[in-house]
Amino acid sequence: MNSTSSSIPNMPWEDRPAGNSDVIWRYSANPIIPRNLTKTSNSIFNSAVVPFKGKFAGVFRCDNKKREMNIHNGKSDDGIHWHIEDDPIEWINNDPELGKFEHRYDPRVTWLEDRYYVTWCNGYHGPTIGVGYTYDFEKFSFLENAFLPFNRNGVLFPRKINGSFYMLNRPSDNGHTPFGDIFVSESPDMIHWGHHRHVMGTKGGWQSTKIGAGPVPIETPEGWLLFYHGVLTSCNGFVYSFGAALLDLEQPWKVIYRGGPYLLSPQTLYECVGDVPNVAFPCATLYDPPSGRIAIYYGGADTVTALAFTYLPDVMAFLRENSEK
Amino acid sequence: MNSTSSSIPNMPWEDRPAGNSDVIWRYSANPIIPRNLTKTSNSIFNSAVVPFKGKFAGVFRCDNKKREMNIHNGKSDDGIHWHIEDDPIEWINNDPELGKFEHRYDPRVTWLEDRYYVTWCNGYHGPTIGVGYTYDFEKFSFLENAFLPFNRNGVLFPRKINGSFYMLNRPSDNGHTPFGDIFVSESPDMIHWGHHRHVMGTKGGWQSTKIGAGPVPIETPEGWLLFYHGVLTSCNGFVYSFGAALLDLEQPWKVIYRGGPYLLSPQTLYECVGDVPNVAFPCATLYDPPSGRIAIYYGGADTVTALAFTYLPDVMAFLRENSEK
Amino acid sequence: MNSTSSSIPNMPWEDRPAGNSDVIWRYSANPIIPRNLTKTSNSIFNSAVVPFKGKFAGVFRCDNKKREMNIHNGKSDDGIHWHIEDDPIEWINNDPELGKFEHRYDPRVTWLEDRYYVTWCNGYHGPTIGVGYTYDFEKFSFLENAFLPFNRNGVLFPRKINGSFYMLNRPSDNGHTPFGDIFVSESPDMIHWGHHRHVMGTKGGWQSTKIGAGPVPIETPEGWLLFYHGVLTSCNGFVYSFGAALLDLEQPWKVIYRGGPYLLSPQTLYECVGDVPNVAFPCATLYDPPSGRIAIYYGGADTVTALAFTYLPDVMAFLRENSEK
Amino acid sequence: MNSTSSSIPNMPWEDRPAGNSDVIWRYSANPIIPRNLTKTSNSIFNSAVVPFKGKFAGVFRCDNKKREMNIHNGKSDDGIHWHIEDDPIEWINNDPELGKFEHRYDPRVTWLEDRYYVTWCNGYHGPTIGVGYTYDFEKFSFLENAFLPFNRNGVLFPRKINGSFYMLNRPSDNGHTPFGDIFVSESPDMIHWGHHRHVMGTKGGWQSTKIGAGPVPIETPEGWLLFYHGVLTSCNGFVYSFGAALLDLEQPWKVIYRGGPYLLSPQTLYECVGDVPNVAFPCATLYDPPSGRIAIYYGGADTVTALAFTYLPDVMAFLRENSEK
Amino acid sequence: MNSTSSSIPNMPWEDRPAGNSDVIWRYSANPIIPRNLTKTSNSIFNSAVVPFKGKFAGVFRCDNKKREMNIHNGKSDDGIHWHIEDDPIEWINNDPELGKFEHRYDPRVTWLEDRYYVTWCNGYHGPTIGVGYTYDFEKFSFLENAFLPFNRNGVLFPRKINGSFYMLNRPSDNGHTPFGDIFVSESPDMIHWGHHRHVMGTKGGWQSTKIGAGPVPIETPEGWLLFYHGVLTSCNGFVYSFGAALLDLEQPWKVIYRGGPYLLSPQTLYECVGDVPNVAFPCATLYDPPSGRIAIYYGGADTVTALAFTYLPDVMAFLRENSEK
Amino acid sequence: MNSTSSSIPNMPWEDRPAGNSDVIWRYSANPIIPRNLTKTSNSIFNSAVVPFKGKFAGVFRCDNKKREMNIHNGKSDDGIHWHIEDDPIEWINNDPELGKFEHRYDPRVTWLEDRYYVTWCNGYHGPTIGVGYTYDFEKFSFLENAFLPFNRNGVLFPRKINGSFYMLNRPSDNGHTPFGDIFVSESPDMIHWGHHRHVMGTKGGWQSTKIGAGPVPIETPEGWLLFYHGVLTSCNGFVYSFGAALLDLEQPWKVIYRGGPYLLSPQTLYECVGDVPNVAFPCATLYDPPSGRIAIYYGGADTVTALAFTYLPDVMAFLRENSEK
Repeated sequence: MNSTSSSIPNMPWEDRPAGNSDVIWRYSANPIIPRNLTKTSNSIFNSAVVPFKGKFAGVFRCDNKKREMNIHNGKSDDGIHWHIEDDPIEWINNDPELGKFEHRYDPRVTWLEDRYYVTWCNGYHGPTIGVGYTYDFEKFSFLENAFLPFNRNGVLFPRKINGSFYMLNRPSDNGHTPFGDIFVSESPDMIHWGHHRHVMGTKGGWQSTKIGAGPVPIETPEGWLLFYHGVLTSCNGFVYSFGAALLDLEQPWKVIYRGGPYLLSPQTLYECVGDVPNVAFPCATLYDPPSGRIAIYYGGADTVTALAFTYLPDVMAFLRENSEK
Repeated sequence: MNSTSSSIPNMPWEDRPAGNSDVIWRYSANPIIPRNLTKTSNSIFNSAVVPFKGKFAGVFRCDNKKREMNIHNGKSDDGIHWHIEDDPIEWINNDPELGKFEHRYDPRVTWLEDRYYVTWCNGYHGPTIGVGYTYDFEKFSFLENAFLPFNRNGVLFPRKINGSFYMLNRPSDNGHTPFGDIFVSESPDMIHWGHHRHVMGTKGGWQSTKIGAGPVPIETPEGWLLFYHGVLTSCNGFVYSFGAALLDLEQPWKVIYRGGPYLLSPQTLYECVGDVPNVAFPCATLYDPPSGRIAIYYGGADTVTALAFTYLPDVMAFLRENSEK
Repeated sequence: MNSTSSSIPNMPWEDRPAGNSDVIWRYSANPIIPRNLTKTSNSIFNSAVVPFKGKFAGVFRCDNKKREMNIHNGKSDDGIHWHIEDDPIEWINNDPELGKFEHRYDPRVTWLEDRYYVTWCNGYHGPTIGVGYTYDFEKFSFLENAFLPFNRNGVLFPRKINGSFYMLNRPSDNGHTPFGDIFVSESPDMIHWGHHRHVMGTKGGWQSTKIGAGPVPIETPEGWLLFYHGVLTSCNGFVYSFGAALLDLEQPWKVIYRGGPYLLSPQTLYECVGDVPNVAFPCATLYDPPSGRIAIYYGGADTVTALAFTYLPDVMAFLRENSEK
Repeated sequence: MNSTSSSIPNMPWEDRPAGNSDVIWRYSANPIIPRNLTKTSNSIFNSAVVPFKGKFAGVFRCDNKKREMNIHNGKSDDGIHWHIEDDPIEWINNDPELGKFEHRYDPRVTWLEDRYYVTWCNGYHGPTIGVGYTYDFEKFSFLENAFLPFNRNGVLFPRKINGSFYMLNRPSDNGHTPFGDIFVSESPDMIHWGHHRHVMGTKGGWQSTKIGAGPVPIETPEGWLLFYHGVLTSCNGFVYSFGAALLDLEQPWKVIYRGGPYLLSPQTLYECVGDVPNVAFPCATLYDPPSGRIAIYYGGADTVTALAFTYLPDVMAFLRENSEK
Repeated sequence: MNSTSSSIPNMPWEDRPAGNSDVIWRYSANPIIPRNLTKTSNSIFNSAVVPFKGKFAGVFRCDNKKREMNIHNGKSDDGIHWHIEDDPIEWINNDPELGKFEHRYDPRVTWLEDRYYVTWCNGYHGPTIGVGYTYDFEKFSFLENAFLPFNRNGVLFPRKINGSFYMLNRPSDNGHTPFGDIFVSESPDMIHWGHHRHVMGTKGGWQSTKIGAGPVPIETPEGWLLFYHGVLTSCNGFVYSFGAALLDLEQPWKVIYRGGPYLLSPQTLYECVGDVPNVAFPCATLYDPPSGRIAIYYGGADTVTALAFTYLPDVMAFLRENSEK
Repeated sequence: MNSTSSSIPNMPWEDRPAGNSDVIWRYSANPIIPRNLTKTSNSIFNSAVVPFKGKFAGVFRCDNKKREMNIHNGKSDDGIHWHIEDDPIEWINNDPELGKFEHRYDPRVTWLEDRYYVTWCNGYHGPTIGVGYTYDFEKFSFLENAFLPFNRNGVLFPRKINGSFYMLNRPSDNGHTPFGDIFVSESPDMIHWGHHRHVMGTKGGWQSTKIGAGPVPIETPEGWLLFYHGVLTSCNGFVYSFGAALLDLEQPWKVIYRGGPYLLSPQTLYECVGDVPNVAFPCATLYDPPSGRIAIYYGGADTVTALAFTYLPDVMAFLRENSEK
C-alpha cells in the first residue's frame, strides 16, 4: 500500500524555529536542490515527490541550458538529497501525433488505485494537461492529454470519488495568462473528461490575478486540504505566493474554507532572485498522519527547489480562523 | 428519417447569376432576416437551420436591445421567411449551477442518431461549448458543457464515427481571442470528451488570425466537407471570411484538402456595415444530394442573416484545384 | 425666463412613424447638419442646443480639416437649419496659463440661474471639464477647469440643488479610455468642486465598457431624467448607443430607475459610417412640457448631427418597465 | 523623353464641380478600378501609374482571394479604364535568397534616367523597400532591397540630385506600425544607401499617428511637391487622409511648406467601407505642366482605386496660405 | 507649536560617511522597519513621520498577508525604532458611502493650522486622495476625498498660501499608470478644490515615465523644497528614484529649480529586491532648521522602510548647480 | 599592426576553476567595474575593450545620474582596472543635424584597416547605428549613421571581406523591441550600406524573443566566431543570456554552427539584481591566438561590467557538438 494517507516516518522535517508563529516555516538549508544539480540543468523547481519503497521518488521539472522545459525522474533516500537523471523521461506512447515534444513542465505525482499517475503541463499546440503513469519509476507511459489547450496545473485527487476520477485544473490561454480560476473535471477512465465545475476564482491581494492548484490534495476528515498558488500583478510583474483551502470530500467543487492570507510569499533571496523573481510555487507535499507533519516542496524563483514545513492541525486551525470563502 | 443526407427538394435556392464564375453566390434578396425581426431583437445572425417535418426549423442567435446574447427557436415554411420567438429558449436542466445565464450564442443544430442536437457558445465562467437537444423544436434540454472554458465554435459531426461522437471546436481565451485553431474531440456519451486532436491551424491571408468550424460537416464519399471561417486582422480590426476544407471520413482530424482562397468575404453593405463591420460567418447549410445544391446561412456584420448558394460538385472541384493543405 | 422647463412650442418635431413602437424614433431628414456645413469643417457633431429668444442657439463641436477639435457658436430659427460660425468661439479669459489651446469638444449648454453655462471637454495637460458662460451667445467667458485631468462628459444640472451647483462627469484616462463610470460633484461657486459621489457604473451589453452623461438632465416630478451613452467593445471597436436613467431630485447620485435596453443604437448609414463608425452620442435635448415632446440632438459616427424624438411620458414608462438599477 | 515634367495632354481629367471650393475634388465616376477587375483579385488599390508611349502603364497592388498581397502589370489607353494582368509580375532576379515571396505591395513607379524604376513594400523577413525596374513594362528586373526591414512607403525622386539618387521612406516596425516619420536616403548606385536624414514627423490631428510619402514628388521651381498620407487613430481604428508639403530642391530633407489641413479625407462610401474602412491612400500622380493639371490615383478603403484632380497652382497657393512647417 | 519649521534636536541622524560626496546618503542600519514588524504585516513602507510631543508619530502603510493595503498608526521615541499598531486606523466618518474600504496607501502627514492632516491614496471606485486629520494620533477623522478618481500622491503644503490650502497631486488612471505629471490644487475649506494648475511633467531618464510629489514640502526662504519620485520604465519594469525641485513660495505651480540628476536610486538589496524590485519612494522628511539636517523616510522595494540623510544647504546647492527647469 | 588576431600576452586571465566543466567561467573578482566608478556614473556596462599600445583602451557605456546614456573613453594597464573619463566622448562632426544628442549606448570597437572604428546605438529620431573612429583614443570622429532607425547592436567585422566592409546589425522598433533577428549589411565606404542579408532569427528557449550580435567576430580558420545574446521573455520580463555561432568566412550571412544551449545566463547577484535584473550582455572579447584564451567583457544587470573566460578550442568543440543550425 502506498496511498497518500500512509505513515512516512522518515519524511524530511525540521521543527518550527523558536519564536516563529507562522503557520508554515522554511527549511533552514534551503534550497535543497540547486539549479545546476544535473549536468545540463539550468534550473530545477516545481517538482513532485512521493514516498516510494520506504524512500522517495519524484518527477522533477528541469529546464536545460537551451531553456527547454522537461520533466526528469529522481530518487532520494531522505527526501532532501536527490539524484536526478540527466536525461528527461522517455514516455512510452504509441501515437506519434501525441509524441511530438513542445514542452513538459510542473509535474504532479500521486498514487491512485494501482499506480503512480503523473500529470503535467504538456505542450500540444499550446499548454494542456498530459496524463501518464509509472509503476516503478523506471518505465513511464503516456496516456493522453486530458483537456484541450489551454490548461495548466492539472492535479488529480488521490482516490476515486463516487467511482470517478477527479482532476483540478486551471483553464488558461496561450501566453503568460493574466487570469485563471480553478476548475474540477470528472472522468470514468482517465481519458474522457466532463462535468467540468468551477471551484474557485481569484480574490483580492495575493490571489488577485490568477490561482492554481498546487500539490495533490490531502484527505482529512473534514475535507480535501488544498494548497494552491495565487498571483498578484505588481507594476514590476507577477508575484506567486501560496495559501490553502478545504474542499468538500464528496463534491470537491464546493469550497468549505478558503484562507484569506497567504501562507508563504516570496521573501528570501532564493525566492526573490532567479530566472523569474518573486515566485514560491508548491507542487508536492509529504504528509505523515501519525505526527500531522507536512513537508511542502516548492519552487523558488522558477530556479531552485525548496522545502517548507507545517502541521496539518495548524493549517486546519488557520483555515477555520481565516476563512473568507 | 431526418439525416443531413436526405433530399430537401423545397430548400431555398436561386441560380448562379449569369456571368458569375464564383464558386459561391449571394442570394439577391439578402439579408433574409433583418436585425429587428422580433420585438426585442437588436440583431439576428449566426444562426442554425435544419429541415424539419418537410419545412424548416432553426435556432437563432438574437442579441436583444440590452445587447445580451441568447438563442431563440424559429420556424419557416420556405427557409427564407422566418418566424422567430420573442423569448429565448428555456432549457430544461436539473443542475442549478449550470443554469446560470452568462451568454449563449452562435448555435449549430444537427440531426444525430435520434434527435436534434444543439451546440452553442455557452457562458460558464467564460465561453465554452454547451450541448443540448430537442426532439420537436418545442422542448429543449440542456445536457452539459462539453469542455472547460475557453472554447467557441463547437460543431458536431452528424453521425457517429467508429462508434463515437465527434465535435470540432476552437480553444480560445476569455476575450476577443486573437488566435485559434480547429481541434476535434471524441466522446462515448456526449458528456465526457477526450482524444483531442489538432485538425488545422491558421495560414496566411484571410485565415491568418484564427479559424473556426462553420456549419455541421456534409458527408461526401471523399470526406467531410467543412465550411469554416477565417479571420484576418487589418489595422482597423478583424475581417471574417469563409472557405472550405475536406476532412477524412474515419479520422476527421486529417485534412484531405484545404482551399487556399476564401469562398466568400465581406463585400456587401450588409456584411461590411453593422454592429461588427466586415463579418461573413456561416453556421448552417442545407444540402440536397439529388441536385447537389447547398444553401449556406451566414451572419452579416454580426447584425443580419444572409443566404448564399453553391453546388457540392463545384465546391469539390474548387478544393481539388486550390488545395494548400 | 429661459429655464429648461419652459414651453418650446416651435421646437423641432416629427411624429412617430406609423407602425413604429420604439420609445425613440429618428428624424426622417437626418442628418440635419452635414459634415461640411462650414468652410473649414471636417465634421459637426456632439453639439448642444438651447432655446434662445424664441429661436435656438447652440454650441457646436466642429473638427476642422486639420482634425483639430473646437467648439463654435451657432444660431437657428427652427432648430433644424443652422448657421454655424466659421471660426471657433474666442473665450474671454485673463489667465494665459488657461488660455492655451489643446482641444475643446463635446459641449453642453444650460440656462442656470442667470446665464447660459457651457461645459465641454477641455484640453489642459489632458482632457478635463472646462466651464464657461455666455449671456447672449455673442461673448463667451471662460471660468475655470472644474476638475483635474482626466475627465470627460461634464454635464451641469440646470438648477442649484440645496444651494449648490452639481455636475455629472466621467473620470477617464489620457487616451481612448476603455473604462468609465458616471460621478457627480458639488460646488458652492462653480470654481471649487468636492463631495464627489459615484452615480452609476458600467453594466453588461451596450453599456459594458464605459458610460457618460449626455444632455443636461430634464427635471420631472419623479426625478432627473438623464439620457446617457454607453459603450460596448466589439472585436472591431467601440459601439456608442444611448439609454436613460432617473436620478433622485435632491440626492442626484442616487439612481431611481435605469433602463436595461438601449433607446437608440447606431443602425443607419450616418451612424455606422464616418470618421468613427458606430456612434450615436447625444449632447442636448429640447423639452416642451405642455406636449411632453423631447427632441434629442446626437452625433452620428462622430461626423454629423442628427435628431431623434420621443415623449417624456413614454420614456418614463419605459424606465418604470425596464429598470435594472 | 518620358520624364515626369513632360506634357500629358490625354491625362484623365474632370473639371472642378461648380460650387466646390476644395483644393482637390474627386472623379465623379469613382472608383475607376473595382475590387474584382481581375479573375483572382480581392481588391486593387494603392497603385502606380505613369505615362507610357502616349498611353498609360502602371503597377498595381492586387490582393488575391487568399489575401496575398502582390503587384501586377497594367495598361490603359486613357488612364481610367485598365487592363491588369491576372498574374503578378515575375521578377528577373539571380539571387534565390531575394526571390522568396513574402508579400509585395504599395508600388510607386517613376521614369528616372533611362528606365522606369519601381519601388514597393517588399517582404524580406519583414517589410522593407524593394527596388526594381523595367524598360518596357514587359520584363521587370529586381535589383535589391534598399533598406533593412522594417520600412514602408519608399518613393524615389524622379531625377538625380547633385549626382545621387534620393529616396523618401518611412521606418516602421513589423506590424500595423502605430508611429512613423518620413526620412530621405541617398545612394550613388541604387544599391547602397546612406546619409539618411529626417524630413518630417507627425503633427496633430489627421497626421498624428504616422505619415508616409505618397506619389513620386513633382518638381516645381519652388521645390518638390510631395503629396503624403497621414494617419489619425480614432477609438475605432486608423483614418488615412492625405495632404501636401514642399521640399527643398537641393536638400530634399528640408521642408519649405507643410499644409496644416488635409487635402482629402475618407468621406465617400468607397473610402469608408471596404477591407480597411476609412482609407484614402495616394500612390501616383499624373502632371501636365502646360495646363497645371494633376490627377491623383489613390486607394479607397484598401479595396478599390479612385481618382482625384487638382491644379498645381492651387496646391501651391494652398501650401503658401496654410503652411505650418 | 508644531510646525514643520520647528527645531527637532532629537531627530534621527548619522553623519555623511567619509569619502562620500553624494548629496544624500543612506542610514547604515537600513532598513529601519522590517517587513514583518507587526503580526499581520507583509510589508511596511511608504510611510509618514512627524515630530510629536518631543518624540515622533507617524502613519504607516502596512500591507497585510492578504496583500490588502491599509494605513496604521505608529509611535517612536527616536524616529528609528517604531511601535506600529497591528490594526489599521479606524476613521471616524459619518457618511457610509465614503466608509467602504477598497484600499488606503502611501500616507503623508503634516501639521497644518491646528491639527495633523493626513492625506493618502484612498480607494473610492478607484484611487483618489483621501483627506483626514488627527489632533492626537489617537482619534482620526475622515473628511472627504479631495478629488475624483484617479489620483495618487496627494501632498499638502504645510501652511496656507494667500489664505488657501494647496495640495500637490498626480492625476492617474485605474491601473499601474504609465504616465503622470504633478499638479497643484487650491481649496478654501479642504473639501472643495479648484484652480488646478500643472506644476511639472516628466523629463528624460530617471523621471521619464511619471513623477509624483514625495514628502510635505519644506519651506525655505527661496521657495518650497520638494523631494519627488520619478519613474523610468526599463524592459524589466519600473524603476523608482527620487530627486528634488524648488517651487515658488506664493505661486507653488511655478518651478524655480529642478534637479537634473536623481538624488537616490535603488542600488541596495533592500531597494532592489522585494515585493516590487527597484523602488526608492520617499513620503516624509524631518527637518531641523538650526542644523540644516534633513532625514528622509522612504520605502524600499515596496517592502521595508529606510532612512537617508542630507543637509538643506547641500540640497539647495545641488539644485542651483544642476537645475534643468 | 593591431589586428584582432595579434597576440595579447598580458590579457586578463584566470584559469577555469577546478571541477568546473562549463565552456565559459566567470572571473572570481567580478564585477570588475562598479556602477559608480566615475563621479557622475549611475552604471557602467555593455562596454568595448581593445588592446592598445601594449595596454588596453576601450569605449564604455556610462549612464549618468540623470539616466542619460552616453559612451566614454577609458584606459587600463591590465584590462581589469580601468580609468574612465568623467565626461562623455565629444565627437568631431561637421553636420549639426547629426550632432544632436539623443542617446548613445552599447559601443563596439574594432581595429579595421588603419584605425579603430567605433559603432554604437545612436539616437537619431530613434535608435540606429552610429559609426565613428579614432586613431589614438584621444580624438574621436563621427562618420555617419549607417542605417535608418530603428536598429541596435551594429557590429563590424574586423577586416574587409572581398573588398567590402560588413556589419552585423539587428533591426528593431522604437521601444523595448520584443522581436529581432541578426542581419548583415555590406558597404564600399562605411557610409552607404546595402545587400542586406538575414543571418539568423530567434529559436526556442533562451533565444526565443530576440537575438543580437555581441563582440566583434573572431576570425578562425573555420569561420567567424560570433558570441551573441539571446532574450527570453518570462512572465516577469526579459532574460538576457549569451551563446555562440560560427559564420562563413566569405559569406558571413551563412551560419555554419549555432550552439543550442546558452554559454552564460544571469545567475549571480551582479547579473540578476540591478537596474535591469537578469541581464548578461557581451560587447567585447580579447583573444590571444597562441594560448587560445578569450576574455569576454559583458554587462551585468545593465549596471556593472564583468569578465568571463574561455578557450577558443573549447568554444569550437562546443559548437561542433551542440549545433542546431
